[in-house]
Amino acid sequence: MSRLLLNCDIGESYGAWTMGLDAEVMPYIDCANIACGFHAGDPSVMRKTVALALANNVTIGAHPAYQDLVGFGRRSMACSAQEIQDLLHYQIGALDGVCRAQGSHVSYVKPHGAMYNDMMANPTQLRAVIEAIARYNPELPLMLLAMRDNSAAQVIADEFGVTLWFEAFADRAYDSVGRLVSRNLPGAVHHDAEVIIAQAMTLSRGEALIASDGSELRLTPHTLCVHGDNASSIDAVQRIRQALNSADTGPSAL
Amino acid sequence: MSRLLLNCDIGESYGAWTMGLDAEVMPYIDCANIACGFHAGDPSVMRKTVALALANNVTIGAHPAYQDLVGFGRRSMACSAQEIQDLLHYQIGALDGVCRAQGSHVSYVKPHGAMYNDMMANPTQLRAVIEAIARYNPELPLMLLAMRDNSAAQVIADEFGVTLWFEAFADRAYDSVGRLVSRNLPGAVHHDAEVIIAQAMTLSRGEALIASDGSELRLTPHTLCVHGDNASSIDAVQRIRQALNSADTGPSAL
Amino acid sequence: MSRLLLNCDIGESYGAWTMGLDAEVMPYIDCANIACGFHAGDPSVMRKTVALALANNVTIGAHPAYQDLVGFGRRSMACSAQEIQDLLHYQIGALDGVCRAQGSHVSYVKPHGAMYNDMMANPTQLRAVIEAIARYNPELPLMLLAMRDNSAAQVIADEFGVTLWFEAFADRAYDSVGRLVSRNLPGAVHHDAEVIIAQAMTLSRGEALIASDGSELRLTPHTLCVHGDNASSIDAVQRIRQALNSADTGPSAL
Amino acid sequence: MSRLLLNCDIGESYGAWTMGLDAEVMPYIDCANIACGFHAGDPSVMRKTVALALANNVTIGAHPAYQDLVGFGRRSMACSAQEIQDLLHYQIGALDGVCRAQGSHVSYVKPHGAMYNDMMANPTQLRAVIEAIARYNPELPLMLLAMRDNSAAQVIADEFGVTLWFEAFADRAYDSVGRLVSRNLPGAVHHDAEVIIAQAMTLSRGEALIASDGSELRLTPHTLCVHGDNASSIDAVQRIRQALNSADTGPSAL
Repeated sequence: MSRLLLNCDIGESYGAWTMGLDAEVMPYIDCANIACGFHAGDPSVMRKTVALALANNVTIGAHPAYQDLVGFGRRSMACSAQEIQDLLHYQIGALDGVCRAQGSHVSYVKPHGAMYNDMMANPTQLRAVIEAIARYNPELPLMLLAMRDNSAAQVIADEFGVTLWFEAFADRAYDSVGRLVSRNLPGAVHHDAEVIIAQAMTLSRGEALIASDGSELRLTPHTLCVHGDNASSIDAVQRIRQALNSADTGPSAL
Repeated sequence: MSRLLLNCDIGESYGAWTMGLDAEVMPYIDCANIACGFHAGDPSVMRKTVALALANNVTIGAHPAYQDLVGFGRRSMACSAQEIQDLLHYQIGALDGVCRAQGSHVSYVKPHGAMYNDMMANPTQLRAVIEAIARYNPELPLMLLAMRDNSAAQVIADEFGVTLWFEAFADRAYDSVGRLVSRNLPGAVHHDAEVIIAQAMTLSRGEALIASDGSELRLTPHTLCVHGDNASSIDAVQRIRQALNSADTGPSAL
Repeated sequence: MSRLLLNCDIGESYGAWTMGLDAEVMPYIDCANIACGFHAGDPSVMRKTVALALANNVTIGAHPAYQDLVGFGRRSMACSAQEIQDLLHYQIGALDGVCRAQGSHVSYVKPHGAMYNDMMANPTQLRAVIEAIARYNPELPLMLLAMRDNSAAQVIADEFGVTLWFEAFADRAYDSVGRLVSRNLPGAVHHDAEVIIAQAMTLSRGEALIASDGSELRLTPHTLCVHGDNASSIDAVQRIRQALNSADTGPSAL
Repeated sequence: MSRLLLNCDIGESYGAWTMGLDAEVMPYIDCANIACGFHAGDPSVMRKTVALALANNVTIGAHPAYQDLVGFGRRSMACSAQEIQDLLHYQIGALDGVCRAQGSHVSYVKPHGAMYNDMMANPTQLRAVIEAIARYNPELPLMLLAMRDNSAAQVIADEFGVTLWFEAFADRAYDSVGRLVSRNLPGAVHHDAEVIIAQAMTLSRGEALIASDGSELRLTPHTLCVHGDNASSIDAVQRIRQALNSADTGPSAL
């Protein structure tokens, strides 16, 4: 069994506004998806976030988004494939610049919010993201949602020589093809810590989940997305970390 | 006599708005100071500008600014030394990212507008700029205003191991210490093409200018700042280029 | 025959960037759709634009948009009905404030770009726009696209007591239901001044146009949308104005 | 003795970021200084904040700022007098628009952060603010810092027919002319609730404070600026409110 890494959206403060318990969650995660200024994260917040990640030996990923600060990057915008590539190069570069000033660098890319959702729903958009990464640095993996069938994404990634890192969620219900059940539906989000940890361990062991229609769903994630929004999510991360560490006998999946 | 390079502010369009005759001026310059998104230049404009520079074998410089799009970076803002460093790392990195996607990179830094003026007026600010470059990449020169006495700037640059590229203006009058005469005063800006070209050649030969008080002012610039705003400035650049090329016998100053 | 008014998008400069020949077109139009800061137009541009409209006795309309400066409000954004109302109240109010400082006020509302297109395509969005106007001031008409059948829009407008001002285009081809033919298709935009003026006069006389499928299309617009982007569009506006004035015998449609 | 009103900066959330305990402090204050979108407060936040103020019968004031979201309007910017007027008309108008959609209106103006400080330090800036209000609506009072000698401000206000509402602070130390002691100096901010309430009551009774040099300082404020940032400031507001209500026998100062 390979090691399941923990990734978390981080650095989502902006100017005078604070969001997330970054310092509290950082000790328990492996990969920090750091906001790049377009949905959250200004240059000073980014400097502090990179320093915090480095102090905790956490791998730094770029978390680029549509240019929609007031909407926190959660609103889909009609961008062309070229615009998406431009957005990615600017934001990944900006974070890489902040990292470089601290002797570090960006190690992977995970689009944020609506850009992530649109990439999962629209192959043209996914292709734009993968091509953008290949043009920037094909050694940067793309983090995206693990589905039952990842072959369409894998074909595009192989064409451009980009590695895919698949992520799963321990606190969300899945449908039979591996999409997250909409938050608007009952049971979409697990709130019971025992349920969350159990799902994390199931994913970690490579066993099947039970999808919303009762079918078995086998995902093969490299990483688990966790949250650092509040005290209870920090507590969940800490317990997932401990459970994974206790069970962990193999090398990292990445 | 060493070669005097021509630098020009470039890539100052934004979204649907066009500014400057970039394609027309690019063939005649050596160094393009490319806007990085905070006073002008969005990710798509930056991509096109970098491509244009590369197609013309023009060296790419980052032209970072205060975050003041509506004021075009021309209004001084009370930023701390740390904020200035953060602004520089973000913007240089962003342009470097756009360059990297085209197989290129940023080769020097020239702050824009009020950030440039504040850097020339305030040693704390100059120190912040130089330290920021040193942290990012000490091999990137800083382009700044050639004065009669550049020793204060040189001391800071030497401390951080950063190279200085001094620039002069062919179309501006100088006071006796080498500051540009304020645009509000009569005679501050030369409009006669013959006067502009004569001043360019005087600077190129390393001879003294006559300052606004009648004294001799000897500047030792590496580069001349030219403009690509409109047809008459393009014409001036073209004529300066020809005059320099005719006279040119030595290696580049840089 | 009632008088067909001319409306034009105006005040789309921003900061140091100029767009459109506002001073040249203003003498020939009746209604100025003034940008409110979210896709174009900053507070200072808005002041100058309002002053120019007042000096030319031009009626002032608010031209609100999605918050997308870099995309010039042309990219659809997934906004809720409540967000659309909030965007409208803020932007109409801002322009009303600029007007008030000059003893004037906003007289109608015409959404811009993608917000206009989304309103025409989506009844929920149209309802949000109309409700927003009703809450702000039900005496402000909404300017929207004249279609063959305007009944669905009229029902919503009647529910909220808001007046509709329908607009048509003299330089665009129409399909059989009154939608503009996509700019991507051949023949979508008329470039021949004679054709443009002929279509303006046909609309002015209340006669039918020939739609792209050859069918007759009768529109009943109150106003014609003209453009002030460049010299040739100014020329077209001037000629449309003269043709309308020569033919004009009735009162304004508004 | 006239009644001393309580004013508080409110509505400083932005998009997904929350700031301040607006709902908790609103029941105890008289005047809400509502952010207008340039340093904080987006159109949706402004709608909710206006609704909250109206539900609590709190008077609504515009709290305009420099356009500096990432700096929260706390960094001085070199704006011309005309730019300041434009900024004010746009922002007051925007908030008035949000109010109008709820059947209300802006009742006074208090500049925020660096714009407030610059107005107090620079008579040209103060004049620009007062002229802007007079042009917009001379019946809107300007809220500004009560000093030992307010005559210079009063002369400008009288010229434009604008009313001044002077504010004082219960939790800050003063120097002998009535300026707030810099937060960088020891003793600048009172943290002891008893001291804060005592200073509020001294100000309310029109008695002299003891300035930082030991001299007596008599201020004649109409209103006291309180804070709703956190639980302890809410507690202080509540206690000031109770103390003022117990002592209150006269009519409002406003």
